[in-house]
Amino acid sequence: MDSVDYAVRMSRAVAAATAEGLDGILVSPGPDLTWLTGYRPPAETERLTLLVLTRAHPPALIVPALERGDAAAVLTLDLLDWRDGDDPYALAAGLLTPSGSYGVSDSTWALHLLGLMGARPGTGYRGLSDALPMLRAVKDSSELSRLEAAGAAADAAYTSILSVPFAGRREQDVALDLAGLLRQFGHSSVDFTIVASGPNGADPHHSAGPRTISPGDAVVLDFGGLMDGYGSDTTRTVVVDAPSDLLVKVHGIVREAQEAAFAAVRPGVSCQEIDRVAREVITAAGYGPQFIHRTGHGIGVTTHEPPYLVEGEERPLVPGMCFSIEPGIYLPGRFGVRIEDIVTVTETDGRRFNNTDRGLAVVH
Amino acid sequence: MDSVDYAVRMSRAVAAATAEGLDGILVSPGPDLTWLTGYRPPAETERLTLLVLTRAHPPALIVPALERGDAAAVLTLDLLDWRDGDDPYALAAGLLTPSGSYGVSDSTWALHLLGLMGARPGTGYRGLSDALPMLRAVKDSSELSRLEAAGAAADAAYTSILSVPFAGRREQDVALDLAGLLRQFGHSSVDFTIVASGPNGADPHHSAGPRTISPGDAVVLDFGGLMDGYGSDTTRTVVVDAPSDLLVKVHGIVREAQEAAFAAVRPGVSCQEIDRVAREVITAAGYGPQFIHRTGHGIGVTTHEPPYLVEGEERPLVPGMCFSIEPGIYLPGRFGVRIEDIVTVTETDGRRFNNTDRGLAVVH
Repeated sequence: MDSVDYAVRMSRAVAAATAEGLDGILVSPGPDLTWLTGYRPPAETERLTLLVLTRAHPPALIVPALERGDAAAVLTLDLLDWRDGDDPYALAAGLLTPSGSYGVSDSTWALHLLGLMGARPGTGYRGLSDALPMLRAVKDSSELSRLEAAGAAADAAYTSILSVPFAGRREQDVALDLAGLLRQFGHSSVDFTIVASGPNGADPHHSAGPRTISPGDAVVLDFGGLMDGYGSDTTRTVVVDAPSDLLVKVHGIVREAQEAAFAAVRPGVSCQEIDRVAREVITAAGYGPQFIHRTGHGIGVTTHEPPYLVEGEERPLVPGMCFSIEPGIYLPGRFGVRIEDIVTVTETDGRRFNNTDRGLAVVH
Repeated sequence: MDSVDYAVRMSRAVAAATAEGLDGILVSPGPDLTWLTGYRPPAETERLTLLVLTRAHPPALIVPALERGDAAAVLTLDLLDWRDGDDPYALAAGLLTPSGSYGVSDSTWALHLLGLMGARPGTGYRGLSDALPMLRAVKDSSELSRLEAAGAAADAAYTSILSVPFAGRREQDVALDLAGLLRQFGHSSVDFTIVASGPNGADPHHSAGPRTISPGDAVVLDFGGLMDGYGSDTTRTVVVDAPSDLLVKVHGIVREAQEAAFAAVRPGVSCQEIDRVAREVITAAGYGPQFIHRTGHGIGVTTHEPPYLVEGEERPLVPGMCFSIEPGIYLPGRFGVRIEDIVTVTETDGRRFNNTDRGLAVVH
């Protein structure tokens, strides 16, 4: 990526905004800003940093004077700096059409949005993932390569973790092993390492705690992070020594749901249809109420982004989209099972970036 | 802190909101939520978690069903959960008065604020630090004790760092030493370890890089983090071996400005007055344009919060407030000098939580 590539992305973003009836988009620090410009300020704070992309002006970044040097080192676009005590919203308002409507990046602070609304009372706003959900959803070839490499690294971590001892160790010890493996196989950051054993597996967001893993436990392993700026996210459920009949049955249902959802992936199918396919398998088996989350989420420069595979998301799959397919069944007090791959949409169907065995692996 | 203490904080927050003409306050994950409830969800995401504090209803937390268990483990207040595919904004809107006005926590995502605005079009919103800047600004005795302890730990780290080698090492090596010392003296997290040597010191936000520190360099050391949930933040500028005459002169001006600003602290004085006092010393010495940031910021459960000591902030100092006083002079291409203490307002004047020597320490 060089400054020309970023200029192309910004120009396409303005075109997409125009097509959506917006006068431009406003982007604060976070994944959209990184993706559009390559600039990654330390953090979003109460000091306004805002990329203003409109049809009327060339791209401009409002930036605290303190950080002008950081921005200038990375960016070739117009920098409008402001000092403590200045009104940065007035500065931004000068770039906005009085009654214009703008997309604003999802994680922009309410403080900043209210500041803009106050400085330009006639303007209207929409969340960027609501207005332009596809802005980052369709990946180009360099992005696909990086997501594929991140998936392969996560697969290598999974293959290795099967050899470590589980029984008698705490979840958090196995989680540390997983984090080390992700880094060993090339990840620059580890975003999550869920090791949810026995009854903890029934909480889809349980991370990893002090519980000691025991023979017979199902263990949900859900882990990922960033490699070369792009995300990984995969889940397998393993069993220590020998599974119960119920675990074998439930695992089989989840696996069937995951396979069915993957098989349904092709251009033009709606996002919600993939969710429905997975849910129908689980519901038909009598576990519908125990599948308590959506089927998947997009992935790219973050590990959680549009498109979401959820009931009500009627937008169609498009070649180049990348997302998780991760149905699960959660039995409170007993165990949980989830199986997750990152999948990309090709011209004809789907292709997985996670390719480890989806069977119920036995660990010890 | 137990659930009664948190209930008192929530009740006071509603009273403060009422006094400000608001119908309630809305708080998403972050420092306000932690301070008001003790609940600290993993992160703010596209899934809405929102504390709704109003006069009309008892405190309630909108929470994703996935995280209900996490919330229930910590909280005794009403939990209203929602599942993927539900409309969480409609759920929240049910707790809002149709034309009510609400304070919303600063870092609430724009996506969520726009969702609320859409679900209850007649409602109005203000940023919480704008509407209720004092919500967390006046610390109680347990908070003051923890800030004082964090300051003492940061001071211990500074005293120790003076003995490590500087010349011939990279900034980032000294930064690692500083981080280790902060942890050794009790910090649970390290938020920043600025080691800005020579010309890098002229950028107030320079962190620490590969530059090798040389004899004669001024080195700005600005570091802090959280200990027992409360922040530290202190700066000293040191010199390797022997200072230039200019460095001695500039350091003396900054020190005089910092002392003068501290001496001006007492209840009833405006925040901007402290900034003016520091700025006048530096301006009188001819370096006004080189003091390119405000004089200070509040500190508590975060290392950056109201009150801000900046021109235009006319609110008065109140006993129990805690903030930094950190004037600086930045000479591009040459060096920077900054001196910073955390200060609390007493019934009569100010008291420092950082008490290491403010002279130009010599390191080697």
